[in-house]
Amino acid sequence: MADVAESERRILVAVDEGEESMHALSWCLKNVVSQNSKDTLILLYAKPPRAVYTALDGTGYLFSSDILAAMEKYGAEVAACVLEKAKKMCKDLQRDVKVEARVENGDPRDVICQMTEQLGADVLVMGSHGYGLIKRAFLGSVSNHCAQNVKCPVLIVKKPKTNAGSK
Amino acid sequence: MADVAESERRILVAVDEGEESMHALSWCLKNVVSQNSKDTLILLYAKPPRAVYTALDGTGYLFSSDILAAMEKYGAEVAACVLEKAKKMCKDLQRDVKVEARVENGDPRDVICQMTEQLGADVLVMGSHGYGLIKRAFLGSVSNHCAQNVKCPVLIVKKPKTNAGSK
Repeated sequence: MADVAESERRILVAVDEGEESMHALSWCLKNVVSQNSKDTLILLYAKPPRAVYTALDGTGYLFSSDILAAMEKYGAEVAACVLEKAKKMCKDLQRDVKVEARVENGDPRDVICQMTEQLGADVLVMGSHGYGLIKRAFLGSVSNHCAQNVKCPVLIVKKPKTNAGSK
Repeated sequence: MADVAESERRILVAVDEGEESMHALSWCLKNVVSQNSKDTLILLYAKPPRAVYTALDGTGYLFSSDILAAMEKYGAEVAACVLEKAKKMCKDLQRDVKVEARVENGDPRDVICQMTEQLGADVLVMGSHGYGLIKRAFLGSVSNHCAQNVKCPVLIVKKPKTNAGSK
């Protein structure tokens, strides 16, 4: 880690429901975070706004408020679950690393770029997908967008093909 | 560097004439390469084929063979010069890291993707530009292309804006 190990780097890792982002986190813990560093890992989960679910339902029917409330609750639970899983991985792979977890509402592309700036991240780590194939067709690649718009170094980690279903 | 430090990672760094790629190399040496690791750093310079110079000349005149030979020689000198500079940076920042240097002919987008696979790189490191503004308009972003097509993790390092002229 040379001379910057002491400089308390802030490493932002964008996590989501996908296995790819967990793979990115794992790769980062093994390859970027050093064992005795003062690095802080910031786990960021971007909770897509309701509109994203609605627009992508595709049935043409609007959801009732009950269903929307249930989806909101489900969304919050997913966020908590993803962050728990990510935190556990941090403890397992780098016991001493400082970990912060954040949930932010919004389009992941915007949220990740904004938070990277706002939190003064020294590097952004993310999977290459972030959305499923269909959603990506609508929303574009999150990692592409972030790599173009974020000022700090961006590390894009793909899940090895042998375990992943898509390219 | 945790448990993979011993695993002799192969880190491919794409270098070119631009200051941004040197900044990417420097960032990598300070943040990814560990001091006592068995990492190998592979410095790759992609020498664009003659057609690229010709096509981008824009005058509409073809070059004489003398000028083409001179440009070829100039291209080889630039490659050697870039690699020397890069090697010196490696020695300065990580004295013990193993360094290999390669020059390959071809469109940098193809060369970088091909060599990453062929050399079994564990991670690809590059600047975000690789071409000047005008050339990029013709050829597209090298880093975007590589991030999409390479299987291993890709680290894209931008030069801080305070020193760089372009976004």
